[in-house]
Amino acid sequence: MKNTFIEDILKMDSETEIFLLGWIASKRKYKKVIFIDVIDSTGKIQAIIEKHENNDLFHKVASCKIGDAIRIKGKLMCDKTQKQIVLEEIHVISRNNVHLSPNPYKLSDIFSEKYVNYFMNNRHFYMKHPKFMAVLRARHKMIDSLRDFFKKQGLTEITAPILTQIPLYPENTAFCIDFWGTKVFLTQCVAFYLESAVLSFEKVFNIGPSFRREKSKGRRHLAEYWHVKVELAWANIDDIIRFAEDMIYYLAKQLRQNARSELEVLNVFIDLDKLRPPYPQISYDEALEILERKGKPLEWGRSFGADEEKLLSEEFQTPFWIRGIPKVIEPFPYELDENNPNITKVADLIAPEGFGELLGVAEKIWKYDKLIRKMQEKGIDPKTKKYEWYLNLREFGCVPHSGIGMGVERVLRWLLKLSHVRDTIPFPRTFQRKPYP
Amino acid sequence: MKNTFIEDILKMDSETEIFLLGWIASKRKYKKVIFIDVIDSTGKIQAIIEKHENNDLFHKVASCKIGDAIRIKGKLMCDKTQKQIVLEEIHVISRNNVHLSPNPYKLSDIFSEKYVNYFMNNRHFYMKHPKFMAVLRARHKMIDSLRDFFKKQGLTEITAPILTQIPLYPENTAFCIDFWGTKVFLTQCVAFYLESAVLSFEKVFNIGPSFRREKSKGRRHLAEYWHVKVELAWANIDDIIRFAEDMIYYLAKQLRQNARSELEVLNVFIDLDKLRPPYPQISYDEALEILERKGKPLEWGRSFGADEEKLLSEEFQTPFWIRGIPKVIEPFPYELDENNPNITKVADLIAPEGFGELLGVAEKIWKYDKLIRKMQEKGIDPKTKKYEWYLNLREFGCVPHSGIGMGVERVLRWLLKLSHVRDTIPFPRTFQRKPYP
Repeated sequence: MKNTFIEDILKMDSETEIFLLGWIASKRKYKKVIFIDVIDSTGKIQAIIEKHENNDLFHKVASCKIGDAIRIKGKLMCDKTQKQIVLEEIHVISRNNVHLSPNPYKLSDIFSEKYVNYFMNNRHFYMKHPKFMAVLRARHKMIDSLRDFFKKQGLTEITAPILTQIPLYPENTAFCIDFWGTKVFLTQCVAFYLESAVLSFEKVFNIGPSFRREKSKGRRHLAEYWHVKVELAWANIDDIIRFAEDMIYYLAKQLRQNARSELEVLNVFIDLDKLRPPYPQISYDEALEILERKGKPLEWGRSFGADEEKLLSEEFQTPFWIRGIPKVIEPFPYELDENNPNITKVADLIAPEGFGELLGVAEKIWKYDKLIRKMQEKGIDPKTKKYEWYLNLREFGCVPHSGIGMGVERVLRWLLKLSHVRDTIPFPRTFQRKPYP
Repeated sequence: MKNTFIEDILKMDSETEIFLLGWIASKRKYKKVIFIDVIDSTGKIQAIIEKHENNDLFHKVASCKIGDAIRIKGKLMCDKTQKQIVLEEIHVISRNNVHLSPNPYKLSDIFSEKYVNYFMNNRHFYMKHPKFMAVLRARHKMIDSLRDFFKKQGLTEITAPILTQIPLYPENTAFCIDFWGTKVFLTQCVAFYLESAVLSFEKVFNIGPSFRREKSKGRRHLAEYWHVKVELAWANIDDIIRFAEDMIYYLAKQLRQNARSELEVLNVFIDLDKLRPPYPQISYDEALEILERKGKPLEWGRSFGADEEKLLSEEFQTPFWIRGIPKVIEPFPYELDENNPNITKVADLIAPEGFGELLGVAEKIWKYDKLIRKMQEKGIDPKTKKYEWYLNLREFGCVPHSGIGMGVERVLRWLLKLSHVRDTIPFPRTFQRKPYP
């Protein structure tokens, strides 16, 4: 087992004898001296060999290639400006025989459109790319902070099922499997299950994979993504808006604090001043007015697409809410506005700078008769066995409750200013593309 | 939004005016006085109303049923032995019209065999059952401690994909979907993907859903379960065994410390003295000898079933390892023993007391030619496009690495001494049973 990492070595004193396992990230060969940069998961350090010191070793190092896995022995030399290892031995553990361009060890713009297919097909190799590594580390830290936030707020993690008979959206937008004779879907949203747990645990969350069988080539869509769901008992739409704002601010603050080096590699600055809640709120109708004024009118009762959200976001420096989404474009579980039965108690949080929707919140229907009527309106037969349990929760001392649905990838894309959600996840699954690797 | 919870009230002074949202868990009505127990997610408190104080309120409380959601106002009264609320107002938020037996608010033996179907069909209601709540809370705490352990050990969380072209086990044991024309499987093990990440991040983990389409009615099998995967670069089989032992001990220690009240409800004692690593190790051959001696011989090259593991575990007071599993019963990615090419560098950790396998660890094949030969031996054509990326990692400066695979439900079942894994997960998915709820 490896027990010395580069981050440890960088704290050691001059003259320390070093044994290090790692990879060659770069090599600069001159007539009488060779420099190699050795990396591991914790950092980078330069190693040096001079020809006159050890001719055999010099030739051995000369024959090494970038990407080779090596074990080295040497002496740490520290001066005012840097620490480096004077090589005494090198052993090649295994060769790198894969030729990749751009170089997976360099800070090239791997997220550029021109590399899309290449990067998608070679994800397994580009795990070595410093920018992609920074994104994946930031992802890890963001999810970690999320859980941290939920813990502080007293939420219980309820690991909801992936396999379900009741997808949230129309069945043709869900992937289905044959479960020993029963047609079963991959979850699109686990809120149904959290709505059960919330009646005992009061505050619950789930972070897990979610699936959409949508023919979308947009920058915000994946066929498989990580879905954050929160459900809070006794919360109305205003409560859940406040909770979501605090969550977003906490995530941004923690990422800025705990992912300094990742943000540096990605050349991203998170401006907390623009993220302090509360965020502005506009109604769906006001959003339509803005679009009208900007020369891109939308018919009432249509969803905003990427273009519309981009236009709207030009009006704001911060994330902003669109409230009162028409019921015709929302699934059945959401509460209606008391003053206008055509709109729901759903609000979407839109990122500034055209990054689009970050999350949605909704107050749920908690009364039996109301839910039956809404299901019927949406063309779902409330007597269908598979919905029975969900409906019956309303006969079991049900209480008002509201939830959040958020895509990990969308929020991360926005915080890291990436052009596409596919680059925020290790192995993306997208429309029509074979899941390879 | 609710802002006072019972755990807060229990810290307040006598005479404090209380507003509380919760549910009625029990009611004791006498001629002139009624006692109700009010619960929320944080605890239980008694409320009292005397007839002569407020006749109307008395009758209102009398008409309430167990499970009704209520809002109450009252005054906190503390004496030496208890704290209770003297009721001044009650408002029924919603009625409980569901009749369940056993009572979901009482400590009945809900995990008993006689309730299996009933409990499976009414999971959404029995989320209120104190024992099931204790299990789900312990689950939350156990997963939390796991992540905590990984964080302390410097592992990066790599959220691996569910949809894959390469299931670990034969395709007929995997659920498949039609992914726009490509046959794609629900993951059985994400190690392939972690093996890619480990070459840059060195230490990685994933906790997520995993799927098995196995016709099993055993107590240790679910069609959908939560799978913990760890992959460590530079680790051999002995290193990974040590890591796994430390992990198990940490989990048990943390659960005992952080889930006191849950363990009390479940009447479970975790004996840390019996869990201190290292754990005994026997070889596969030695295991066969024990079985022979115990009158239940097994042919060499067969897997241990529940019965065999139970017999073996009678020999040990602690978890124990079985090393050197024959290669005929293991999938292709695992390293072979240098001295005996018929056995793998795979070890399984078996729980004492008949709870069976908790986790498996394995050293992976990291050399290209060796992996090709092993694939061919297992009847997999190494030229199949879908395996190309995985194979090619061995040409990319690959290094020795080893991994752990562990089922959350199995470990939790063992720590909580439950009779079946289905009771460790909120909404179990099992062989042939419709996923309802």
